[in-house]
Amino acid sequence: MTMDLNSDLGESFGRWELGDDEALLSIVTSANVACGFHAGDPTVLRRTCAAAVGNGVVIGAQVGYRDLAGFGRRFIDADPGELTNDVVYQIGALDAFARIAGDRVRYVKPHGALYNAIVHHEAQAAAVVEAVRLYDPELPVMGLPGSVWLRAAEQAGLRTIREAFADRAYTPEGTLVSRREPGAVLHDPREIADRCLRIAHGEPVSAIDGTPVHIRADSLCVHGDSPGAVQIAREVADHLGTSGVQIAPFVPRSGRRPSDHTR
Amino acid sequence: MTMDLNSDLGESFGRWELGDDEALLSIVTSANVACGFHAGDPTVLRRTCAAAVGNGVVIGAQVGYRDLAGFGRRFIDADPGELTNDVVYQIGALDAFARIAGDRVRYVKPHGALYNAIVHHEAQAAAVVEAVRLYDPELPVMGLPGSVWLRAAEQAGLRTIREAFADRAYTPEGTLVSRREPGAVLHDPREIADRCLRIAHGEPVSAIDGTPVHIRADSLCVHGDSPGAVQIAREVADHLGTSGVQIAPFVPRSGRRPSDHTR
Amino acid sequence: MTMDLNSDLGESFGRWELGDDEALLSIVTSANVACGFHAGDPTVLRRTCAAAVGNGVVIGAQVGYRDLAGFGRRFIDADPGELTNDVVYQIGALDAFARIAGDRVRYVKPHGALYNAIVHHEAQAAAVVEAVRLYDPELPVMGLPGSVWLRAAEQAGLRTIREAFADRAYTPEGTLVSRREPGAVLHDPREIADRCLRIAHGEPVSAIDGTPVHIRADSLCVHGDSPGAVQIAREVADHLGTSGVQIAPFVPRSGRRPSDHTR
Amino acid sequence: MTMDLNSDLGESFGRWELGDDEALLSIVTSANVACGFHAGDPTVLRRTCAAAVGNGVVIGAQVGYRDLAGFGRRFIDADPGELTNDVVYQIGALDAFARIAGDRVRYVKPHGALYNAIVHHEAQAAAVVEAVRLYDPELPVMGLPGSVWLRAAEQAGLRTIREAFADRAYTPEGTLVSRREPGAVLHDPREIADRCLRIAHGEPVSAIDGTPVHIRADSLCVHGDSPGAVQIAREVADHLGTSGVQIAPFVPRSGRRPSDHTR
Repeated sequence: MTMDLNSDLGESFGRWELGDDEALLSIVTSANVACGFHAGDPTVLRRTCAAAVGNGVVIGAQVGYRDLAGFGRRFIDADPGELTNDVVYQIGALDAFARIAGDRVRYVKPHGALYNAIVHHEAQAAAVVEAVRLYDPELPVMGLPGSVWLRAAEQAGLRTIREAFADRAYTPEGTLVSRREPGAVLHDPREIADRCLRIAHGEPVSAIDGTPVHIRADSLCVHGDSPGAVQIAREVADHLGTSGVQIAPFVPRSGRRPSDHTR
Repeated sequence: MTMDLNSDLGESFGRWELGDDEALLSIVTSANVACGFHAGDPTVLRRTCAAAVGNGVVIGAQVGYRDLAGFGRRFIDADPGELTNDVVYQIGALDAFARIAGDRVRYVKPHGALYNAIVHHEAQAAAVVEAVRLYDPELPVMGLPGSVWLRAAEQAGLRTIREAFADRAYTPEGTLVSRREPGAVLHDPREIADRCLRIAHGEPVSAIDGTPVHIRADSLCVHGDSPGAVQIAREVADHLGTSGVQIAPFVPRSGRRPSDHTR
Repeated sequence: MTMDLNSDLGESFGRWELGDDEALLSIVTSANVACGFHAGDPTVLRRTCAAAVGNGVVIGAQVGYRDLAGFGRRFIDADPGELTNDVVYQIGALDAFARIAGDRVRYVKPHGALYNAIVHHEAQAAAVVEAVRLYDPELPVMGLPGSVWLRAAEQAGLRTIREAFADRAYTPEGTLVSRREPGAVLHDPREIADRCLRIAHGEPVSAIDGTPVHIRADSLCVHGDSPGAVQIAREVADHLGTSGVQIAPFVPRSGRRPSDHTR
Repeated sequence: MTMDLNSDLGESFGRWELGDDEALLSIVTSANVACGFHAGDPTVLRRTCAAAVGNGVVIGAQVGYRDLAGFGRRFIDADPGELTNDVVYQIGALDAFARIAGDRVRYVKPHGALYNAIVHHEAQAAAVVEAVRLYDPELPVMGLPGSVWLRAAEQAGLRTIREAFADRAYTPEGTLVSRREPGAVLHDPREIADRCLRIAHGEPVSAIDGTPVHIRADSLCVHGDSPGAVQIAREVADHLGTSGVQIAPFVPRSGRRPSDHTR
C-alpha cells in the first residue's frame, strides 16, 4: 500500500521568499513547482527542480493564470485558446529546468483560481487538457476527483491523479467545504494524520456533519506556507509510514540520471 | 553556394501587433522568434512557430532581457546566474511551441540590448553561453563575428553562426557603424542586395569610408518592421537567388514531420 | 445644443503603437486616457496628456484591470478592496501627467472587461465608485445608462455621464446588442452620423429590430483603432457640427493654463 | 538638536510580504514608501500610507526602475526621458494614497540600483530631478551627500536632504565602503547607535581604516528587513532620544488632517 504526498513549491519570486521548500522536499514525494505565471522566477525554478531531484521528489508543473499581483488566485476569464498556450508555455519553461536537473516534468497540476475554475468551467478545463495533450499526452494530470477537469482529461486519454486535501473538511457528497464556512480547515495534526491514513486505506472519513464519506485519492496534498503546515505535513508522512503505508510517488522516480539533451 | 536569411519574428504582444511576419516567412530561412521576455505572448509564439514550420523556416530562440516596457532594448545589469536561468526559461518555453509545430528550437540568437551587451560584456556573454550549453549543447548560436559572445560560445564547444546585417554600414575594421552616425543605415534596396551578394560570394564590400572590407557571414539579417523593410528583404532574396546563391538555412530543415513527444 | 465626443487614447505601450491619437484629438472633446494597467506606459501618458491639453480635449482616466497581456479585456475576479486601490493608483498616476500638462483628470471611465463587468457586478461597481469617491468626489464618472455602475455612482453622490456608442446597434430595451450577434456593429459612416444626430436631438433611433428606441446620452463614444474608425468619427463630428449641435466637453475646458503645483 | 530617521517601507507585493513595517513605523520619522515599480502593489501602498499617517510618519516616494523580478536592484540603462516619466508616474500614484490618508508625498528618495546609479550617472540623475521638478518643485529629495543626484537637484532649486547609513562603514573620503568589502556592514547595535549619535552631533566617526571622518547628514537610514535590523533601528532611536537628540522629520508633520481633495 502506497500513497503520494504532494505540495506546492517554488513560489518565491525575486526578492520575495515564500514557503519552506527545503523542509517540504524532505517530506513529500511530488512537487507542484510554480512556473512563473503566478509565482516562481527562472532562478527559483532552477533551484527548486535541482532540489527536488536531489531529494528524489517528482516534479510536476503547477500552471496558473498570468497574475503575479494576484498570485494566480483570481479567476481570469481567459480565452480558452490563449489559456491553452499559456499552459504550454509554462510547462515548456519548467521542463527545461527539470531536464537540466536530470529529470522531466512528470505531471501537471493547475494552481489556485485556475484549479478552482476548472472544477466546473468546461471551456477552461478543456483548454488545459488540450495544453497537456499537445505538450505530451503521456503526462498525467492531478486534480479534484469528480471535477470537470479530470473527466475531460480522461476523455482525452490522459492519466488522471485524484488528490485529497489533508487539512480540509469534506461535505457528505465528498466535495470540499468552502473556506468561508466554519470548520473548513482542520488544524489538529493528529486528527489530520488519522484522516489521511483512513483515506490511504480506502476507509471512510467523517464529513463535516459527521456522515462517513469515502474520499478516493491517489495523492494527498499538504502545505508548507507556515511552520504549523510543515509540522502537519511531517506528522502525516510519519503516521502513514509507521502505519504501513509507503510514501511513494505515483510515477517511478527518475533514477536521478544526469541530464540527457541529445534528444 | 548558399546563404541563410534570418529575421526577427513573433514580436507582437496581446493586442499589439508588430511586423509583417507572414511576408517575412515567405522570404527568410531562419526565424528568430521572440520568447515572451521582450515581446511575444504564448499565443504569438504558437502561431509563429506553426507558420514557420508551414513555410519550412527554421526556428531560433530570440532571447532577451525581461523588459516588455523597454522591448528588451535597454541594458539590464542582470546577475549572470539569473541571466542564465532567464535564457533557459525562454528557450524551454519556445521549444514547447516549436515541438508542437513539429520541429524544435534549432539555434539561439540574443535580442536587442542583450545582443549588444554581449559583444563586449564577458560575464553576460558567458551567462548566455551557459544557458545554451545547459539546455542543449548541440544548439548553434548566432551573433556578431568577433564578439565576445561568439568567442565564448566557441570555447564552450558550441557551433557559431556569424551574421551580417543587410542594411547596415560597416567600419573599415568590419564592425557596425553606430546607428547614431550618419549613413549607418542603408536604404537603397538595390545597393543593399548588391552588398549582400558580395558578402555571399566572400567578396569585400565598401566600408563607410570607401575602404574595401571583408564581412564573413553565415547568415544575413533582414528586417520586417516596415513595408520598406519587407521590400528590401524580398529584393535581397531575389537578387541572391537569381545570382546563383541558394537561400537555405544553416541547419537542415526538419522535414516538417508531425510532433514527436514520446521523447 | 451640445454633445460630447469621447474616445479611448493613449493605448500604445513601449515599442507597440495603437490607434491614431493625433487624428482623434482633432475630433473628440473628451479623451479616455489609458493609465498603464491595460495599456499606456508613462511616456505614452505624458505625451497623450500634453497633446490632449494642446487640443483643448478634456482628460479622463480610463482605468482597467491589471492585465497588459489581455489588454484589460478579460474579466478578473478581483477582490473589491484591491480593485478600489488599483483604480486609485491609476487615477493618481494619470493625474500627475494631466497636471504637468496644465490640466487635471476630469472624469473616470472604466475600460474593457471592467466596463462590461460593472454593468452588472455590484461589488466591483461599488469598488470603482469607492475609488473615485476616495480620490476626488467631484470627479464625474462615465458609463452605460442603466448600469449598476452609474446607479451606484449616483447613490454615492458622484456626477454621472451617460454615453452612447456611435457605431453599435441597440436592442429595443436600449441595451447594446452583443458583438457576437450579426448586425451588432454599424459600418456606414452616414448612417452612424445620422443616428448620432438623432441621439443628440433626443429623438429615437431604430433598434436592431426596427423598433424606435430612445438612447439618452451625454457623450458619444467613437473609436480610432482603424482608418475607417477615424473616418467615422470625423463624419459624426462634422454632421453634428453642420446640423447645429455644438461638439463640446461635458466639463468646462481648463483654459490650458500652465501647471499649478503650488498646492 | 534633531535628527530624522528614514527607512524603506511598503515593499511587500501581492502574496509576498517583506519587512516589519509596523515595527518600523513606531521608530522612524520618514517612510520611503515603494511605488509599485520595484515593489509595492496598490493595496500595500494604501495600507502603508494610512499606517504612516497614523504614526505621524512623513511619506516619501521611493521611486525605482520598473523591475519587479529584480526588486529594482539592477541597473537599467533607461532613456532619461522615459525615466523622468516613470518617476512622475510613481510619485503620482503614491501621492493618491498619501492624500487619501490625509497627507501628501513630502519627499522623493530613489531606490536600489537607481539610487546607486545616480550617485554618478549624470543623465539619469538629471532625469529624476526633472521628474520631481515637473511634479512639484517644492518636494525635497533625499540622497547621498556629494552625489551627482543631490548636486543636480540643488542646481534645479530643489531642497536636498543628505542621508547617512546607520549600519554602513565609510571610507576616509566619506563615501560608502562597497558591500563587497569586508567590514562594509556594521552589526553591533551599540556601536551603530554611538556612530549615529556622533553624526547627529556633527562629530567625526571612524572610517574603515580608523581615520576620523565627518559625515554630514539630515537623516539617518535604518533598515527593517530582519529582526536584527529592527532591533538596531530601535537602539539608534533610543540612544539618540536619551542623549538629547530629538527624533523628528525634516519637514513638518501634516497634523493628520482628514483628506482634502477639493484642490
